[in-house]
Amino acid sequence: MKTKAELKDFILNGHLHFIPHVSIDCAIFGYHDQQLKLLLIKNKFVNGWCLPGGYIRRTEKLVEAASRNVKERTGVDNLFLQQFKTFGGPDRTRFEDFDEEKWFEMTGCRVGKNNWLLDQTISVGFYAITDFSKTILQSDLIAVECGWFDVDALPDLEFDHNEMVKEALHTIRVQLYHYPIGYNMLPEKFTLAEIHALYETLLSKKLDISNFPKKLIALGLLKKLNEKRSIGAHRSPHLYSFDKEKYDNALKEGVVLS
Amino acid sequence: MKTKAELKDFILNGHLHFIPHVSIDCAIFGYHDQQLKLLLIKNKFVNGWCLPGGYIRRTEKLVEAASRNVKERTGVDNLFLQQFKTFGGPDRTRFEDFDEEKWFEMTGCRVGKNNWLLDQTISVGFYAITDFSKTILQSDLIAVECGWFDVDALPDLEFDHNEMVKEALHTIRVQLYHYPIGYNMLPEKFTLAEIHALYETLLSKKLDISNFPKKLIALGLLKKLNEKRSIGAHRSPHLYSFDKEKYDNALKEGVVLS
Repeated sequence: MKTKAELKDFILNGHLHFIPHVSIDCAIFGYHDQQLKLLLIKNKFVNGWCLPGGYIRRTEKLVEAASRNVKERTGVDNLFLQQFKTFGGPDRTRFEDFDEEKWFEMTGCRVGKNNWLLDQTISVGFYAITDFSKTILQSDLIAVECGWFDVDALPDLEFDHNEMVKEALHTIRVQLYHYPIGYNMLPEKFTLAEIHALYETLLSKKLDISNFPKKLIALGLLKKLNEKRSIGAHRSPHLYSFDKEKYDNALKEGVVLS
Repeated sequence: MKTKAELKDFILNGHLHFIPHVSIDCAIFGYHDQQLKLLLIKNKFVNGWCLPGGYIRRTEKLVEAASRNVKERTGVDNLFLQQFKTFGGPDRTRFEDFDEEKWFEMTGCRVGKNNWLLDQTISVGFYAITDFSKTILQSDLIAVECGWFDVDALPDLEFDHNEMVKEALHTIRVQLYHYPIGYNMLPEKFTLAEIHALYETLLSKKLDISNFPKKLIALGLLKKLNEKRSIGAHRSPHLYSFDKEKYDNALKEGVVLS
């Protein structure tokens, strides 16, 4: 959503191009160097912080809609987006106190209370994890601002988005035992300590150092390279990398990593 | 949906009481004595076999809608329903070849091609597992027939429902490693061989006999009773039951069972 004309058409005629009553919200986590962050936008329509999201074009698959909405709102691209839960119920909508003048002020567009954006909506939640240090943020007209926030110090989010984040994290923590993770979040060649730190950060707990790396090696997902990294006197740990073919296959089939 | 007047009101005015564009479909699996079955209905609107489902009342939570729809269509009640995935995309809808006369014949109701039931719909998938030997099936006007089908010999289902079943089974098989299962599917007191058989049937593979039962005992989810069952000369295995409090807590919190 780059121009005011586009925004106006979306508000007034969006129900013709998008599926009404169904939105998409994306919990995009960012990992770098033992820090876990979350991507938030300041939403023009509600004035508060929330997850990047939007509506589904009638020609799109759900995952395509998720990807497009994150890219439009925040500029972040090339994510491995996965559905985690759909949110609904009579308490989701906050537009019962619709104020025509306030909406006009916020959006520059005059609408009635039966505008398609004001009716009851369920929302399909997607998550992804990326390396936040590699992203360049660029917001659009719906996301007037966007940024990375520490997962441990999130602001109060609009709608049910705090609950969405909680559910997304819960899903990620269960998925860690069944799907490989780390590609795109670690350097191409990394030490076992680095991948161990990734798991500890995502699970938010201390783990036996041998746990996940050992299983990943046993399943052939991690390859030991004939290279070491020098990190100080008498300390030069071996480097590893993912076997991308086995990694992709494990993403499809699932494995047992615990 | 019990009367023709109710059905007519649903077809003509349903968009006022239900959320348009969003349906619910439920993969209800039935376990008994090492057999795994799936609950299917013959849907009045499409004439083929499909999963029981329907729309969400504007006053309902998603899980309430799932529960009500299964009960209305099939009579099956008291299920522990869990969301597994939401299905969408431009290829989901099959009503492009809408035929007014055929619809009138099927439903007894004359509608135009812009009727709310004919527009694009995404569907939220729920699953549950129950003991099929304890159910009494009773279909309504939308489900003109319903029955339990062997999971290994399902008919071709309408819409994308075969894919839904596949995804539901995949989810169940991952969840088995993280949530207890068996309550309502096993007798109140059961042998380790019986719970082992439940896991083998659900996972559709042979398992080390000690695997799941051993973990369940270690976590306190299974209690060894001071009772044995006599099943033949020199064979009287110990009986076990679930610790319901710990079981319910593990359902909420998740555990690691592998």
